Amino acid sequence: MEGRLLHTPEGVRDIYEGECRRKLDLQEKMHRVFADYGYSDIQTPTFEYFDIFSREVGTTPSRDLFKFFDREGNTLVLRPDFTPSVVRSAAKYFGDAPLPVRLCYSGNAFINESAVYQGRLKETTQMGAELFGDQSLQADAEMIALTADALKASGLEKFQVEIGQVDFFKGLLEEAGFDQEEGERLRTLISQKSFFGIEEMLRAKSIDHSLKQVFLQLTEAFGGIEKILEARNWTKNERSQAAVSRLIDLYELLKEYQCQEFVSFDLGMLSKYKYYTGIIFRAYAYGMGQPLATGGRYDNLMGYFGKDSPAIGFVVSVDHLLAGLSRQGSPTPQAPKRQLLLFEKKAEKDAARYGSEERKAHRPVILLQRDPGRELDFYRQAAEKEESLSVIYMNENGRIEDRW
Amino acid sequence: MEGRLLHTPEGVRDIYEGECRRKLDLQEKMHRVFADYGYSDIQTPTFEYFDIFSREVGTTPSRDLFKFFDREGNTLVLRPDFTPSVVRSAAKYFGDAPLPVRLCYSGNAFINESAVYQGRLKETTQMGAELFGDQSLQADAEMIALTADALKASGLEKFQVEIGQVDFFKGLLEEAGFDQEEGERLRTLISQKSFFGIEEMLRAKSIDHSLKQVFLQLTEAFGGIEKILEARNWTKNERSQAAVSRLIDLYELLKEYQCQEFVSFDLGMLSKYKYYTGIIFRAYAYGMGQPLATGGRYDNLMGYFGKDSPAIGFVVSVDHLLAGLSRQGSPTPQAPKRQLLLFEKKAEKDAARYGSEERKAHRPVILLQRDPGRELDFYRQAAEKEESLSVIYMNENGRIEDRW
Repeated sequence: MEGRLLHTPEGVRDIYEGECRRKLDLQEKMHRVFADYGYSDIQTPTFEYFDIFSREVGTTPSRDLFKFFDREGNTLVLRPDFTPSVVRSAAKYFGDAPLPVRLCYSGNAFINESAVYQGRLKETTQMGAELFGDQSLQADAEMIALTADALKASGLEKFQVEIGQVDFFKGLLEEAGFDQEEGERLRTLISQKSFFGIEEMLRAKSIDHSLKQVFLQLTEAFGGIEKILEARNWTKNERSQAAVSRLIDLYELLKEYQCQEFVSFDLGMLSKYKYYTGIIFRAYAYGMGQPLATGGRYDNLMGYFGKDSPAIGFVVSVDHLLAGLSRQGSPTPQAPKRQLLLFEKKAEKDAARYGSEERKAHRPVILLQRDPGRELDFYRQAAEKEESLSVIYMNENGRIEDRW
Repeated sequence: MEGRLLHTPEGVRDIYEGECRRKLDLQEKMHRVFADYGYSDIQTPTFEYFDIFSREVGTTPSRDLFKFFDREGNTLVLRPDFTPSVVRSAAKYFGDAPLPVRLCYSGNAFINESAVYQGRLKETTQMGAELFGDQSLQADAEMIALTADALKASGLEKFQVEIGQVDFFKGLLEEAGFDQEEGERLRTLISQKSFFGIEEMLRAKSIDHSLKQVFLQLTEAFGGIEKILEARNWTKNERSQAAVSRLIDLYELLKEYQCQEFVSFDLGMLSKYKYYTGIIFRAYAYGMGQPLATGGRYDNLMGYFGKDSPAIGFVVSVDHLLAGLSRQGSPTPQAPKRQLLLFEKKAEKDAARYGSEERKAHRPVILLQRDPGRELDFYRQAAEKEESLSVIYMNENGRIEDRW
């Protein structure tokens, strides 16, 4: 019974001491970056009606959602991610704003992962930003620069932002005349970098040999800007061409944000999130398979909520970032300096007064009444094991008699 | 469909703009107070196994919990409050600590209120602190001073912390020889301040007339310290006497914290939370029925998790506090000053560079590419409606041509 009682459910955890300090510290630093880019905070409910995360919005399969019922029998869902909720809010409160709207958030999201993924977290902390009403190249660049600046602010030194453009692939699908199902099959194969799978699927299709080659090339269309420059000649269809041009222009603009060193490209990056419509990107720390951040343009999602507006956003997985920082050997923020005032019962009022004064000056104080059964040495030894803790001993007369 | 899609479920809500600024601002300020008192942050999962919030722990009736299942069929519960989770963590990670342990938290809690309470929030933000391993009077005083200092830091001007002592009532029950069920009935009647109900119940009992009078007096045993001084003579049983003495000593000690002006007493305050064992308290803003903060001593709860340790804690309902501040007419924190850089497409690189430089100096900048179909006046008018927004216009040559 007791053993069981001390456990958290599978996939969720307690965060405390050094890890909690690091987490709050990096969240504060990233939040500062969001503010510098002019983003305003929004908080949405932890659970929403099922429709908000339904198949049309396409973020998380229904079976991976935590579902339950309210007293009226409506299906409620713990949010698997924030974007649909923030889009809902933007449509509701800012749908008629004349200027673009910038919103940011910080909170927890929940995925009921199947047993296959044991060890993965079911509750994660996410911080992200969404920009509504701006379809410019500048907006694309801003979102990538914001991602890079937020990660830098967290203390992460080595990371890479990989950028794709879903329109390149969509243009190829149109050119080949593929229907949605074929497109989806091909997308899966390309995401798996399954060269032979693609070859086999395309063998049966009556499409141009050179177009087949382009689909095959998508499995290895990643690297620096030179990969994108190369891809200019892969196809003549307008949509794919426009996608490539936008990436090239984006790269030029990113130089002004001084974050070109962090970026690379991958035309074969095709997110499973159906709602992306332009650039998509993922940030990785070296040696980590799970992305630290993901983002992209989703110009059609607002339409689901009855408003028409371009949009682009990204989210940082704070838990992955914590793992990345720890892997990189980034130092844990120190515990704040604290004084332990050890006092005799007779001096409790003097102790209270001392604590009160010190705290007013924002000097943290902990008060501890000496147990008459314990020697000072006991406290000395116990305090030495604590980080950033100095001890003051106050005797029965309310005088400070010793410090260590 | 659209209308429905824009709604949050009953009892939960979006928080944005001024209200969100105020919320984050007061949370930061209260967190600072927690740190000054030497409390360390802990985060526990949003949901836990049902047992953590079961009847023995006694916080929220099972029917008012949000329950669902994990893939293994275990019953999970959205936390209705933080204390049981923090106690679980304290038992798990700090159960053998030689010195008292101070933990604080901030997060959301969930109660599936029945339809009777429509309008009440099902998701609320709570900030609280728990102190383990210290049964001194100083610990009692600290917790009340911390509550008062946290509320003051939030900007609240007028509030009252009402203090009770459950041992006074428990001593009377022992003296009367009442069993648990009788005690519970009486507790309910006293909480409802039902003088006649108490009279009727006691009529049938063969207890001393003067003891009956004491039970009846509990319905109006509230006020300043003079009420407590008076209660010294109500009964001679040791437990009740000790409870009264502790309150008197507490009052004297609270003077050193300079918060005696905020406190009052109520011996008839008998929380429904079964786990309280000593002082209990509630903070109220003038004119509001719902408490802003509640707390008390619960020396037996840790035992449920297999460790033996005295404990005392409190929690602030951030949502009630927001309502209190708003009712009091407390000013909303201003939006941070932001520059809107309106630029021509041809100057997008100059704009990016400008934004980048300004943000490095933590001067928030928003970039906006001028739509060629819109006059500058359109932007001028739109910007005027935004708070704390100044506009800079950059022409095609990357020169700043106008400011307003």
